[in-house]
Amino acid sequence: MKVLGLIVEYNPFHNGHLYHLEESKKISGADFVVCVMSGNFIQRGEPAIVNKWARTKMALSAGADLVIELPLSCAMASAEYFASGAVRILNDIGIVDYICFGSEHGDVKTLDYIAQILVEEPESYKSFLKEELDNGLSYPAARESALKKYTAHSINIPQIISSSNNILGIEYLKALRRIKSSIIPLTIKRINNDYNTENITGSISSASSIRKYISTSNSTSFDDVLAMTMPKTSVDILFEEFSAGRGPVFKEDFYPVVTSLIRKMTPEQIRNFAYVSEGLENRIKSAADTAGTYEELVESICTRRYTKTRVQRILMGILMGVTSKDLDMLSRFDSPQYARILGFNSKGKQLLSQIKKKSSIPLVLKLSDFIKSCDPVLKRKLELEILATDLYVMCYKNPAFRKAGQEFTQNIIIM
Amino acid sequence: MKVLGLIVEYNPFHNGHLYHLEESKKISGADFVVCVMSGNFIQRGEPAIVNKWARTKMALSAGADLVIELPLSCAMASAEYFASGAVRILNDIGIVDYICFGSEHGDVKTLDYIAQILVEEPESYKSFLKEELDNGLSYPAARESALKKYTAHSINIPQIISSSNNILGIEYLKALRRIKSSIIPLTIKRINNDYNTENITGSISSASSIRKYISTSNSTSFDDVLAMTMPKTSVDILFEEFSAGRGPVFKEDFYPVVTSLIRKMTPEQIRNFAYVSEGLENRIKSAADTAGTYEELVESICTRRYTKTRVQRILMGILMGVTSKDLDMLSRFDSPQYARILGFNSKGKQLLSQIKKKSSIPLVLKLSDFIKSCDPVLKRKLELEILATDLYVMCYKNPAFRKAGQEFTQNIIIM
Repeated sequence: MKVLGLIVEYNPFHNGHLYHLEESKKISGADFVVCVMSGNFIQRGEPAIVNKWARTKMALSAGADLVIELPLSCAMASAEYFASGAVRILNDIGIVDYICFGSEHGDVKTLDYIAQILVEEPESYKSFLKEELDNGLSYPAARESALKKYTAHSINIPQIISSSNNILGIEYLKALRRIKSSIIPLTIKRINNDYNTENITGSISSASSIRKYISTSNSTSFDDVLAMTMPKTSVDILFEEFSAGRGPVFKEDFYPVVTSLIRKMTPEQIRNFAYVSEGLENRIKSAADTAGTYEELVESICTRRYTKTRVQRILMGILMGVTSKDLDMLSRFDSPQYARILGFNSKGKQLLSQIKKKSSIPLVLKLSDFIKSCDPVLKRKLELEILATDLYVMCYKNPAFRKAGQEFTQNIIIM
Repeated sequence: MKVLGLIVEYNPFHNGHLYHLEESKKISGADFVVCVMSGNFIQRGEPAIVNKWARTKMALSAGADLVIELPLSCAMASAEYFASGAVRILNDIGIVDYICFGSEHGDVKTLDYIAQILVEEPESYKSFLKEELDNGLSYPAARESALKKYTAHSINIPQIISSSNNILGIEYLKALRRIKSSIIPLTIKRINNDYNTENITGSISSASSIRKYISTSNSTSFDDVLAMTMPKTSVDILFEEFSAGRGPVFKEDFYPVVTSLIRKMTPEQIRNFAYVSEGLENRIKSAADTAGTYEELVESICTRRYTKTRVQRILMGILMGVTSKDLDMLSRFDSPQYARILGFNSKGKQLLSQIKKKSSIPLVLKLSDFIKSCDPVLKRKLELEILATDLYVMCYKNPAFRKAGQEFTQNIIIM
């Protein structure tokens, strides 16, 4: 029994994801697949286009056996926290043999070598780094330069660390090294066209191009373009959600809620929220005063230092009321602390009984039971998860599905 | 020079308003008309269908000469506060000779007699009242019974005080008496069909039937039904707003903002807001958790004691962050303290120069100047006005008009 772990968002599940899933099984020789998936809000600081239960169905119908939720506090965080949270879950459940991630580079040894340097920080690397920092370079620039020097230019560092999936991959590898995990990392070279993620370009298109297509098309039933770039089961699940009036959910739907919150606050109040560092509160305030759309709001806060995804995560933090204090409290944990099951198939059921034996963290099958018994900090974390969903569902087109408390009422997906 | 004062909402201005305006001029013999009008939020605790500047245009084009804003803290308040705020402004500007209001009863003497009893509280009335309260009657029921006894059944008290415009009229009369105003009150019997305010019934229809019609029809240009029940100038202004994408604004537009705010709060936090008395916080909380629409939210909070309009005002208070503390502070004033000009015509300009000489309260022509010079409590009141508009404009369909600060940038309407 070989178990493969995948770290995913599936927003929504498309042919590229299917390719990755099938190739990963092939190269690992694994016969079971566990996915750790972000929930109703994703790493970019946006709501997912359809909820996590629908995306769980997509994953299971495409070959995943078990889907575990990456808690919001890890899912909607920087690449480093996202990666370490997901890796910790896959490690802590005690049954995963391989992790396979997509990367632009495609060679796990090189990426892992970089991860090793960054985790172990050998003396000469550290002195290169210090030198560059003393020269006035920013931390990322100093790190890049130190890596180049340390590897004696044997690796094309700038090219590798300029690609988002390589960066994320290195973070997975760092996380595995830090916890001395026995999980074997693998990577698959990404085959999608990264030069054009804006538009659907063929059978393999980016998730963002698909979301963009959905936001501009008004398809509510069968759609040629989506059928070309997503597995049929995914398209069916997507339209099942749309026709029920549960989505598509877009960040734009949060314009009134987020902007009105900020318009009501003073810059000093904005300052209290997570990741709002000095000066940014004024940018956020004046952006909310002038912005007519969510996109405008984000764009007018962004700077070179504050990237779009970082700004989006900050705004979602404001939406959910996550203060710097909360963040301090939540980050006292170095791991997600629990594995919440979103769905499984019959093979996943076998995995669950293995996990029950081997996991070092509790398995959460029923949130209402778990929340009663857990400690206060974990409780705050779960309350955040519950609130996030209570706010997410308000964006549904169909009022009948906007009820709060769906984290308690929604059943685990069993396929 | 005779000046007539009208207290209005014009949401939107229709034939019934025109009839009232013209009849009032006729019976008073006045040659000038000053309107005190609620702003972007109205007495029922709802946003106005189009903004106050558009409604000012409607008023001026229908025969009003000067429009003064009733500040939010009075406009979105109980009949008593609404009436006393509006009457105080008309009194304090020092030039108004008559106030003429619509009433179901139509006889100002009878209404004023009731007002006199309620203001002066003669001994025998007071003892009737005490008796009924001691018998366990609610205050409104005890008052009704005491009035019946005091007037020795010479007036049909129950019939009079069961009609909303009589009630409001009595409040105007009470306010005039309390401040010993020299303004002469007049009333006109309302001619609209009160038995059916749900649907447009003819050339005189209620404002709520017109709003309902607009919410269900999708007219964005000329419309037969509206043309039948509103003056042409009003219809034109309405469609000018709609086609620019500034409205129609409905309370339903506030569903995500208000509901998400409440979903984030504990009942204890809800308790801090204005007019939320013991126990209501739990109703509000659970209503927000289950409601899929604003209408549902309101309906599930209402009780016999908490009427729909009261609940709506409470929800708007939560939206704007008005706490009980704020309310205590704001109600330290017994009058609006200033007269903010929304618009005028050439005759209104003449009035303004008279007001400048005779008014006991400052005339606000430029908010940015006034807010700098006023005292802290008044400043809080104005900030509330500014915030209300900053939140109101976010509901516009056209993102270009959603900017904050329109209280500062919008010019006075001069026609």
